[in-house]
Amino acid sequence: MAIHPLWNKYPTMQEQLIETQKVMNKSVKIRNKEMTEALQLFFEAGGKLLRPAYFLLFSSFGHVPNNKIKYQMAASLEILHAATLIHDDIIDDSPIRRDCPSIQAAYGKDIAVYAGDFLFTVYFQLLANSSQTTEALESNALNMKRILVGELDQMHLRHNSRISIKQYLQHIKGKTAQLFQFSCYQGTQVANTSLRVQILAQRIGYQIGMAFQILDDVLDFTSTEAELHKPILEDIRNGNYTLPLIYAMAENRDAFMILEKGPELTDDDIQLVVANINRYHGLEKAQKLATRYTDKALADIAKLPDTLERQILTELTERLLNRQD
Amino acid sequence: MAIHPLWNKYPTMQEQLIETQKVMNKSVKIRNKEMTEALQLFFEAGGKLLRPAYFLLFSSFGHVPNNKIKYQMAASLEILHAATLIHDDIIDDSPIRRDCPSIQAAYGKDIAVYAGDFLFTVYFQLLANSSQTTEALESNALNMKRILVGELDQMHLRHNSRISIKQYLQHIKGKTAQLFQFSCYQGTQVANTSLRVQILAQRIGYQIGMAFQILDDVLDFTSTEAELHKPILEDIRNGNYTLPLIYAMAENRDAFMILEKGPELTDDDIQLVVANINRYHGLEKAQKLATRYTDKALADIAKLPDTLERQILTELTERLLNRQD
Repeated sequence: MAIHPLWNKYPTMQEQLIETQKVMNKSVKIRNKEMTEALQLFFEAGGKLLRPAYFLLFSSFGHVPNNKIKYQMAASLEILHAATLIHDDIIDDSPIRRDCPSIQAAYGKDIAVYAGDFLFTVYFQLLANSSQTTEALESNALNMKRILVGELDQMHLRHNSRISIKQYLQHIKGKTAQLFQFSCYQGTQVANTSLRVQILAQRIGYQIGMAFQILDDVLDFTSTEAELHKPILEDIRNGNYTLPLIYAMAENRDAFMILEKGPELTDDDIQLVVANINRYHGLEKAQKLATRYTDKALADIAKLPDTLERQILTELTERLLNRQD
Repeated sequence: MAIHPLWNKYPTMQEQLIETQKVMNKSVKIRNKEMTEALQLFFEAGGKLLRPAYFLLFSSFGHVPNNKIKYQMAASLEILHAATLIHDDIIDDSPIRRDCPSIQAAYGKDIAVYAGDFLFTVYFQLLANSSQTTEALESNALNMKRILVGELDQMHLRHNSRISIKQYLQHIKGKTAQLFQFSCYQGTQVANTSLRVQILAQRIGYQIGMAFQILDDVLDFTSTEAELHKPILEDIRNGNYTLPLIYAMAENRDAFMILEKGPELTDDDIQLVVANINRYHGLEKAQKLATRYTDKALADIAKLPDTLERQILTELTERLLNRQD
């Protein structure tokens, strides 16, 4: 089983994430072999398993009574994440995911709808098996709802050139930060850590998630291989306006009137939009906000007990939030 | 709040189903108003609320400690059903559901994917709130998984002109009978009935579900307004072969060679297929099998304690399974 090279430096994490991926692979085994294979390939395509990783790292600050439960919960977080990715790719008509064809591109829309649905049931089943109390399930249900509401926000805000920074932040809070926050928090819950660590976990997870998504949105514009690549063109054409553009629009709305062409925007039009985002400091400002969230996260991580896992948390967070692609 | 006229004759049921629908409408209230409205309209469009009804009827054979929990569970069954319908309509490209435009036809594919996903979270939340034990959640998770596997079977069997009767029965068991069976069973669970009633509930639910789906598939061919209407044409073109066709093919496979044209089948071709289904007794045989399941269900219902609810169960089941449209 291959795990993302990000983890090569951390053998203890590597080991635990391999266990997590075993649970994931096993949990999607059903009599429909095509579906099982499609999902196992999707898992193998190498997500970084960040959400399970943060969960596992935070669980180290207490005592987990049962390893089976730990890995089931870790797997459930990645499974939920995968379900939302697969359905998002249907909605965005994304051809590519993790450098491979998306499920909908490879197998068609039908399989993709059911693949996501099936992962929701797997998620639900893993949780039902691993939760000792119905409270844990209630908090999971609430978590899932908030993620969905974040995705609906995004859809609702499409083509809205008056989208505010606040609205953007609210939607990425649901779409991305919620699951990071929840993963960290659930780690402390399952390990029954001190209340102080539980509170820190929630704050840290939230800050990491916010920084992570903002940075993702910045990298869409700046990563070398991405220079005006398809996702940006598509995102702007589809009316998904992210923070760099929102900041630039706030500086000079008239410079972006051309956006009203919507799906009719030509590649040249979008080149102009991107030039104006640079000119009105959209990327700089967004990067700055990501750095603020990162710094807050790092400051809070420093307040955790001084362990090997805290060290890994620090390095991982620095590395993720200073990545260039 | 309007409830399907089916319930006019049964005021106690009407009352309880209105309470159930209140929980449903309330549970889909979120800040995305468009989504809330779409779903409330979908609920109002008047499903018969059969799954909650069977749940409620079976809960009458014991004692439900808490009405709030009862209505949450009843609502959760219809919510799960609605989620699967909405996603099925995406996959089948169905323009119509309950005599209204389907969610995907009215609001587009994007809303339909998220509407289903959102209902899964609502389902999950209702259950987490109403379940006192994690066992109840495990059985719900397993139920959901079996339904999904049934839907995958259907997809997998498409355009397979060698589909056997056994395969058809296995797939409708998952797709339809599972949720009827589970609804009846969950009613006896929440009311803590005798074990005998619990076992009967499962059998009865299964038999009703099987009869219900077979009859549905027969009515697609025979209901007066349906005379060669779009759903049949589409079903056959899409390769969804149901029991009347399977029975007829078993009688004379050569008469159905034309099916190999698949999506290229003309309306005339399909008229020929339908004529041959009649000629080779497909409808008669399917109807007969539905009647066998119905008779078994009625015989088992007669073994329940002699109450008003047993009377309603008998009438309801007879009426449903002898319906003409």
